Amino acid sequence: MELPEITSKLLAAKKAKRMTFADIGKALGKDECWVAALFYCQAKATEEETCKLAKLLELPCEELKVLADFPTKGLGPVVPTDPLIYRLYEFIQVYGMPIKAVVHEKFGDGIMSLIDFSVHVDKEQDPKGDRVNITMSGKFLPYKVW
Amino acid sequence: MELPEITSKLLAAKKAKRMTFADIGKALGKDECWVAALFYCQAKATEEETCKLAKLLELPCEELKVLADFPTKGLGPVVPTDPLIYRLYEFIQVYGMPIKAVVHEKFGDGIMSLIDFSVHVDKEQDPKGDRVNITMSGKFLPYKVW
Amino acid sequence: MELPEITSKLLAAKKAKRMTFADIGKALGKDECWVAALFYCQAKATEEETCKLAKLLELPCEELKVLADFPTKGLGPVVPTDPLIYRLYEFIQVYGMPIKAVVHEKFGDGIMSLIDFSVHVDKEQDPKGDRVNITMSGKFLPYKVW
Amino acid sequence: MELPEITSKLLAAKKAKRMTFADIGKALGKDECWVAALFYCQAKATEEETCKLAKLLELPCEELKVLADFPTKGLGPVVPTDPLIYRLYEFIQVYGMPIKAVVHEKFGDGIMSLIDFSVHVDKEQDPKGDRVNITMSGKFLPYKVW
Amino acid sequence: MELPEITSKLLAAKKAKRMTFADIGKALGKDECWVAALFYCQAKATEEETCKLAKLLELPCEELKVLADFPTKGLGPVVPTDPLIYRLYEFIQVYGMPIKAVVHEKFGDGIMSLIDFSVHVDKEQDPKGDRVNITMSGKFLPYKVW
Amino acid sequence: MELPEITSKLLAAKKAKRMTFADIGKALGKDECWVAALFYCQAKATEEETCKLAKLLELPCEELKVLADFPTKGLGPVVPTDPLIYRLYEFIQVYGMPIKAVVHEKFGDGIMSLIDFSVHVDKEQDPKGDRVNITMSGKFLPYKVW
Amino acid sequence: MELPEITSKLLAAKKAKRMTFADIGKALGKDECWVAALFYCQAKATEEETCKLAKLLELPCEELKVLADFPTKGLGPVVPTDPLIYRLYEFIQVYGMPIKAVVHEKFGDGIMSLIDFSVHVDKEQDPKGDRVNITMSGKFLPYKVW
Amino acid sequence: MELPEITSKLLAAKKAKRMTFADIGKALGKDECWVAALFYCQAKATEEETCKLAKLLELPCEELKVLADFPTKGLGPVVPTDPLIYRLYEFIQVYGMPIKAVVHEKFGDGIMSLIDFSVHVDKEQDPKGDRVNITMSGKFLPYKVW
Amino acid sequence: MELPEITSKLLAAKKAKRMTFADIGKALGKDECWVAALFYCQAKATEEETCKLAKLLELPCEELKVLADFPTKGLGPVVPTDPLIYRLYEFIQVYGMPIKAVVHEKFGDGIMSLIDFSVHVDKEQDPKGDRVNITMSGKFLPYKVW
Amino acid sequence: MELPEITSKLLAAKKAKRMTFADIGKALGKDECWVAALFYCQAKATEEETCKLAKLLELPCEELKVLADFPTKGLGPVVPTDPLIYRLYEFIQVYGMPIKAVVHEKFGDGIMSLIDFSVHVDKEQDPKGDRVNITMSGKFLPYKVW
Repeated sequence: MELPEITSKLLAAKKAKRMTFADIGKALGKDECWVAALFYCQAKATEEETCKLAKLLELPCEELKVLADFPTKGLGPVVPTDPLIYRLYEFIQVYGMPIKAVVHEKFGDGIMSLIDFSVHVDKEQDPKGDRVNITMSGKFLPYKVW
Repeated sequence: MELPEITSKLLAAKKAKRMTFADIGKALGKDECWVAALFYCQAKATEEETCKLAKLLELPCEELKVLADFPTKGLGPVVPTDPLIYRLYEFIQVYGMPIKAVVHEKFGDGIMSLIDFSVHVDKEQDPKGDRVNITMSGKFLPYKVW
Repeated sequence: MELPEITSKLLAAKKAKRMTFADIGKALGKDECWVAALFYCQAKATEEETCKLAKLLELPCEELKVLADFPTKGLGPVVPTDPLIYRLYEFIQVYGMPIKAVVHEKFGDGIMSLIDFSVHVDKEQDPKGDRVNITMSGKFLPYKVW
Repeated sequence: MELPEITSKLLAAKKAKRMTFADIGKALGKDECWVAALFYCQAKATEEETCKLAKLLELPCEELKVLADFPTKGLGPVVPTDPLIYRLYEFIQVYGMPIKAVVHEKFGDGIMSLIDFSVHVDKEQDPKGDRVNITMSGKFLPYKVW
Repeated sequence: MELPEITSKLLAAKKAKRMTFADIGKALGKDECWVAALFYCQAKATEEETCKLAKLLELPCEELKVLADFPTKGLGPVVPTDPLIYRLYEFIQVYGMPIKAVVHEKFGDGIMSLIDFSVHVDKEQDPKGDRVNITMSGKFLPYKVW
Repeated sequence: MELPEITSKLLAAKKAKRMTFADIGKALGKDECWVAALFYCQAKATEEETCKLAKLLELPCEELKVLADFPTKGLGPVVPTDPLIYRLYEFIQVYGMPIKAVVHEKFGDGIMSLIDFSVHVDKEQDPKGDRVNITMSGKFLPYKVW
Repeated sequence: MELPEITSKLLAAKKAKRMTFADIGKALGKDECWVAALFYCQAKATEEETCKLAKLLELPCEELKVLADFPTKGLGPVVPTDPLIYRLYEFIQVYGMPIKAVVHEKFGDGIMSLIDFSVHVDKEQDPKGDRVNITMSGKFLPYKVW
Repeated sequence: MELPEITSKLLAAKKAKRMTFADIGKALGKDECWVAALFYCQAKATEEETCKLAKLLELPCEELKVLADFPTKGLGPVVPTDPLIYRLYEFIQVYGMPIKAVVHEKFGDGIMSLIDFSVHVDKEQDPKGDRVNITMSGKFLPYKVW
Repeated sequence: MELPEITSKLLAAKKAKRMTFADIGKALGKDECWVAALFYCQAKATEEETCKLAKLLELPCEELKVLADFPTKGLGPVVPTDPLIYRLYEFIQVYGMPIKAVVHEKFGDGIMSLIDFSVHVDKEQDPKGDRVNITMSGKFLPYKVW
Repeated sequence: MELPEITSKLLAAKKAKRMTFADIGKALGKDECWVAALFYCQAKATEEETCKLAKLLELPCEELKVLADFPTKGLGPVVPTDPLIYRLYEFIQVYGMPIKAVVHEKFGDGIMSLIDFSVHVDKEQDPKGDRVNITMSGKFLPYKVW
């Protein structure tokens, strides 16, 4: 997987400024996950937002304008090899059909939108070991019959 | 994708009894998603639970004992074609790397466990269209250094 | 590609009754393409519709109830080998990126829904050879920013 | 997917001139989708057209002559990961066989040509959300029997 | 590769009758290659032709009616393993691009149709070893510009 | 597919000299298809031929010596995406098994050589549209039994 | 990999008769490797040979006639998983290019035929451990230039 | 397939010196095939051997030291496209299972080592056409039972 | 992945007899892992051992004789989906190259044999959670130079 | 497989200093396998450790800071071609299911963690040939039921 050039520039600047995605998100009025998606060119900003981000990270505004283009999304590979990302793939392999059955039962014939969609990552303190909570929220889209 | 024979039997019985996964979950003291995973042989029950389930669905206890075996998990195919399940794959392709970046920032070097793990599906009423909320919760596992 | 058993039964009955998809569609108040999708278990009917269809094709109502289940969609293979269907794949390979560019220019950041979606097939008379017109209509879904 | 070098030059020039594909199409006497296909080297222009386009975008005529070569078409990847383009792939997976059945019923044994072919993208205003209409028109080619 | 059931029946009957594809072709007024394609369900006959063929091979007419359906074509696998068929794949790998260059030079922008198409296999006597001559003839289809 | 550097040099020189593959073939005493194969490094010339070609195209003799090396053949990808080349792949998928059946019937157990092989592309004038005729001629190689 | 039904019959009969491939080969006047290839439907016998083999193994002559058909060769899978067969695949991965270089140096432009071909397996006694010697012998086929 | 940089340097130097792999092998006390494997970084030399080879080819000793590193072996692609190398792959597809059966019959449960292994390429004069003889010799490794 | 029929019979019999792999191993004088491999037809027993096992599990001796055949090994799929087995694949993806570097440093040029090989699974009590210890032991095989 | 740039720098420095992974491990208080994993960017160090390592290898501290980033793990390819690494893949193909069966029998429903995990490589002296011992130790993670 070859990441876009802008991604490493953004990550390096963020590291140099010792800012978290949450810090940047607060400054832009966005969630940290959306900011991270923007860093990896998986989301699109407005031209104003790219300039705001450029100032925040002390990068030339012009250079970040690429973040306002419509990106070709999907980072590959087909089956992820990184252990953290693979676990999300394992989620599909193991729980995909069961989740489908439950969604249909609760909502009827349709799907969860990945477009009218948001995702949050939370840290839940737990004496037996902290937990990663990932919450996906997508609009239910019922199949049109025509 | 060829589902196990027991899966269609269970689904047919559940339909005949007009029970939801939630109804069955309540009777077994389990979450509806775990019950659905059990139906698809992606989770393992105890022998007692298989009998309890058998009674609930009015199926022969003996026939459901296979649910107490250790299943070979993963339902395939490599890239899901079903639109509902594909959206979860799209989630990995688009948000996998950003999620990884956020998890590392919040938790350090490690992953979200898919074993010490639970998932819930909730229906959020929304005047602009109901939302599907999927919440994954996995223990953070820090990489051991040796 | 192994088609569902019900598909060949439906196709055989339709052939025996010398009905077109359009005839059946008219009787059900549906488009011919949706009816064809139902035949291949790529769309879901209501229980009432399955019975109506059963009567129309003189098949036992009970047998067609499977059409009211939530199907696992996607017929494979990964790259279609049938010449007619391959041309639609060639459409993606050749015109996918250009279409994406035009849609973004006209609508902004988002996609065409395949769920709030319909498709029609029309025959256009043309002295140089009739033309197949396929019209896809999907709701534009703008990306949510959060 | 690595796009041809000329593609980014053309897109950058178009952006700088604040022209749409439709604007360029009008100037060249072509449809916007064909123009977009040309930008991605999925269509071939005449030498005259490349010069006309070069003037329009204020680029050196010589540099655009590559657009008059016969391109090797198909932009990959095998299964698209971009959500907008994937939906077109989902169209094949879900509606490919049904469409085939309807086309055969209406036209007989043959296919829709992707060569004697055009495609249009239209925006349909709709109070419930605008719709993307994609219309493909291809000559029906009956199988020769010999 | 699993061949259709009808294929082995036809081949067995043909063997029993000691007829060649050419013999059958002559009786049906068709080329031997088209007849072979029909045997493998890669071409479609009319209902009359299926009956004519049935009589010729002394098979029940009803059983051969499947040859009048619109077949889903493409026999797989993705890369052929059979040495004879692989050589045709090697032809594409080695001579595909050169052939493309020559066709474009001679005909301009377009392709050879595989639909308005015929193929012949001839045996050329040669003292150094007989030669297999395969002649493909397809209508040139020029790309439409719109 | 990344073509060898020498290929673009040769094609550019040929274009500049306004020569066809046939022109070059005549000068070298070779068929146009073989010349095209040489351009794409899918055939091997003698050192003398590379110099003759260099003079013809006014390129430095030294630079073309690479054409006298033994190339690693096969241009990929596994399934061609270019419409013109794909049609040849479709030929295998659809007519591969039928051709195999006819060759065995006419020649017995063996294959058509792709090594003791030649291919020609001819333009057949036809009022209904010119035809591309591709003629492959390969020595029949009978299987040795030992 | 699913083997042909006849293969297990032949292997069972051979085991029951306590014959080696070499024993059978001697009786048929063939090499043991060719006999093994016949057992796996990777070689074709004459009708006389199938009967001779049938008598030898005390099987019905009629049942073995399938061995006189032209088999579709290649046993799969794409990358062998069986350790013994994988080692031959490793041979290609590691020594393929070097072997190609040596063959070209010794023979010029061409290949080793796999059709005018034989292979032998020999056991070489060695105090440090016996050695498996596999000898392939194929006619050199020089590329034709046309 | 991208070959290591050192490979082209070695091949160019060998060509300039007009030496064969056998010449180099003789000078190093090694077989020509092993030398070819070394050229393609599929075998490992000692530091002394790299210097000896450097002198022989008049290349800087330092530059060839990379040949004494432990290479990552396997040259790809998964299915070879080069006709000469493909024939070796065809060998596995067609004769892999038969060879396995013969080796087990002669040696018992185990495999031919590809590590304690050598391969030779010989030219056998034959009036009907010279033959390429490839002889593999690997130690038989019996499966350990524990 | 379709397991051999004998595997489920053996597993069912073992379950009915309430024996562990270790119990069976003790009775046969073998390690539990080897016994498990035999159950899945990934190891080969002697005819005596199959009878001994048959008696132990009260199964007909004849039925287990298949365990004395030479199995075609490798259970697939290419990338395992079962979480437990996938972790072993992750081991290769993450630690494969590092392990290779360490083995070469300690042993020189060669590999760990998977044939002269054994593996053990041990349970290590640990207050923070028991540990699975998998120990592989394979003979080091140095590359032969010839 | 393209290794990170830092990997070759580290390996070259280590070679120049004539240090083993064990030497470096001792200096850092880490196991040699973990050090090797760090070299290949498959493990993450602290900033302090990167500086300690930099001093040890006489490399600029700044340059090694990349080792403190969170790496994207997994070195590919999908099926390893290097013989040493392939043997580990063969281990999964052959012994994966048997190991799974034994682990479940000993530990119940769960997996061996690859995160709370360590691996050691040991050299066992043996008169019949030294043995490579690879010991994996991972915490057993029982499946949560919810």
